[in-house]
Amino acid sequence: MAAALALARAEVPSFVLEQASQFGEIGAGIQLGPNVFRMFDRLGVREHIDKDAVQVEKLIMKDSLSAETITEVPLIGAFAERFGNPYAVSHRADVHGALLQACEESPLVTLAHSQRVESFEDVGDGVLAETEAGQTFRGSAMIGADGLWSHVRSHLFGDGAPRVSGHVAYRAVLPFKEFPEDLRWNAATLWAGPRNHLVHYPLRRRELFNIVAVFHDDAYVEGWNESGDRDALMHRFDGVGPLPMSILERVESWRMWVLCDREPTDVWSKGRVTLLGDAAHPMLQYFAQGACMAVEDAVCLADMVVASCGDYTSAFRAYEKERYLRTGRVQLMARFLGDIYHAEGVARELRNQALRQRTPQQSHDGLAWLYGGP
Amino acid sequence: MAAALALARAEVPSFVLEQASQFGEIGAGIQLGPNVFRMFDRLGVREHIDKDAVQVEKLIMKDSLSAETITEVPLIGAFAERFGNPYAVSHRADVHGALLQACEESPLVTLAHSQRVESFEDVGDGVLAETEAGQTFRGSAMIGADGLWSHVRSHLFGDGAPRVSGHVAYRAVLPFKEFPEDLRWNAATLWAGPRNHLVHYPLRRRELFNIVAVFHDDAYVEGWNESGDRDALMHRFDGVGPLPMSILERVESWRMWVLCDREPTDVWSKGRVTLLGDAAHPMLQYFAQGACMAVEDAVCLADMVVASCGDYTSAFRAYEKERYLRTGRVQLMARFLGDIYHAEGVARELRNQALRQRTPQQSHDGLAWLYGGP
Repeated sequence: MAAALALARAEVPSFVLEQASQFGEIGAGIQLGPNVFRMFDRLGVREHIDKDAVQVEKLIMKDSLSAETITEVPLIGAFAERFGNPYAVSHRADVHGALLQACEESPLVTLAHSQRVESFEDVGDGVLAETEAGQTFRGSAMIGADGLWSHVRSHLFGDGAPRVSGHVAYRAVLPFKEFPEDLRWNAATLWAGPRNHLVHYPLRRRELFNIVAVFHDDAYVEGWNESGDRDALMHRFDGVGPLPMSILERVESWRMWVLCDREPTDVWSKGRVTLLGDAAHPMLQYFAQGACMAVEDAVCLADMVVASCGDYTSAFRAYEKERYLRTGRVQLMARFLGDIYHAEGVARELRNQALRQRTPQQSHDGLAWLYGGP
Repeated sequence: MAAALALARAEVPSFVLEQASQFGEIGAGIQLGPNVFRMFDRLGVREHIDKDAVQVEKLIMKDSLSAETITEVPLIGAFAERFGNPYAVSHRADVHGALLQACEESPLVTLAHSQRVESFEDVGDGVLAETEAGQTFRGSAMIGADGLWSHVRSHLFGDGAPRVSGHVAYRAVLPFKEFPEDLRWNAATLWAGPRNHLVHYPLRRRELFNIVAVFHDDAYVEGWNESGDRDALMHRFDGVGPLPMSILERVESWRMWVLCDREPTDVWSKGRVTLLGDAAHPMLQYFAQGACMAVEDAVCLADMVVASCGDYTSAFRAYEKERYLRTGRVQLMARFLGDIYHAEGVARELRNQALRQRTPQQSHDGLAWLYGGP
């Protein structure tokens, strides 16, 4: 939808084929770096996003065993000034709602749900897409934004299933008042434990708390909304300190998904068909940039379509060329961050020692390539 | 031997039990960071080491596919001034010879070859070691410096075999004149290729060139001096550019070893027995610091023995406490460097882009924790 909206802002009409039976959004919180706010401005949805998002004051990393604060990155003051935008967290449904409403209001975007693309064909001067229901759509070009398990990618490149990381994520949302009172701070907090970590932050005008627990596990299920096994999770967090444990204990029921990614690649397009977001560059969520990268993709893609005066093949080539190093860097860094978050033993001590010494300025410098924008 | 020498400098006598039938040293080149020269000064072997070592002018990293210079770290001028010592490369046999001669000249060191320790026992006020040949040695304490496949470690901790990395190293030494003429520069050079890399530097007053080729392979052999399969190696370097290939083509016969390491640990001692060097903290050789760390261990160990006034148990505890974070950092960084050296595809481009931007000052800053000394 971000791509449709970006194209609409450039006067290019589009059809959005959604496979679900309605345009809704499952899931819970997402983090929004300053880099994506520039995109929301471009898309004209900034005001709507700001309404529900919570501007968090800092990123906090704590050690799950000792409860020591390993490092804090302030997100207001010098940070917001430097990157020209805040860092915020939001409910996926709220961001989705903002994009959906803008799409619905645009005469250039047509939304069609229950339309799962079964096959497609580049016919030289356009693309024909046939849906499972047997309907055929014809467009000048096609963008596959169908996520980690992208069918469009599989048809385009046949490069197999995503790489299973061996890490599993559980998520839950608690009402503000059910979240442990002594941990209700306005920050995105990460508790780094041995082979696990726990993230929490406030959500939706601080009415909710978003909780994500990640741990090493061989589970393998496709999808994003499976039911989580509470006992399995508690077992993997056995031994963490009382504070992170107090959060886990409040949650009765979890949704889970298996974390997968791919090696970065530099070709996402074939002719008049291209990929966007997780379909192009699936990443572990340790950098919390999956949604941000997809929205950046959308804006870049529309810019390239405009610049190419309707030559979609070269527009898509220019788009992937512009994007693959940045998104590849996030993909690889996310893996590396996973190792940092899950360190144990001597590696844990070295992590804590190294991060403890960082000044806010150094943290901001280290993130400038990302938050400074594409 | 470095430990025996360090102890001798502190007036502590020792027995060196060498399992080989003579005190010789196999192998080829080793790299000597400025950090180890401070130790050579302490051991009184500096002059002897300097005689045969080659002071290289820079570290060079090149891309094996494009021949592009990715980065250069100057090792003279600001580097030598900052760290108070040079960076040099030497033949293992030369370093070994310097230590051996100093040990032989010391009345406090007794050398015994063909003495493989079969078992040992901490008897409260000393350690009894029984060798395979059935001889018993009694000492106040025992230091296991028996390398990657340490028997002493296995007896002390029973923590299993080292971790097989999936990387294999081949080495060779060529006379100066047989080495490709256009590559005979005075630098430690690393050609980074896809899933492989090649290192070369001059050796022994520049009469020789040392060559090490590393590649991903499932081979598994214990030991350090196996015969290498030239065809297997050439196959793994298929596709690298003509310059690195010209080196590989000059080598007729290779020695090989399988690269292994362990997770860092913080306990190397039990009572009056401790470990040193690879026995304590085996590392991949990507940081070229294995020998340096062992010599640093030796000097630290002797210092702690002196400081503890003969209480070996607390001396060993103080020694491992002093050393484990530094050596653990080298162990983990070495693995990380392996990923950097062997990057392919988008990761390779990101590596080249990031390293190309580094100034000599930044490279020196990044290495200061290591070369600045323990």
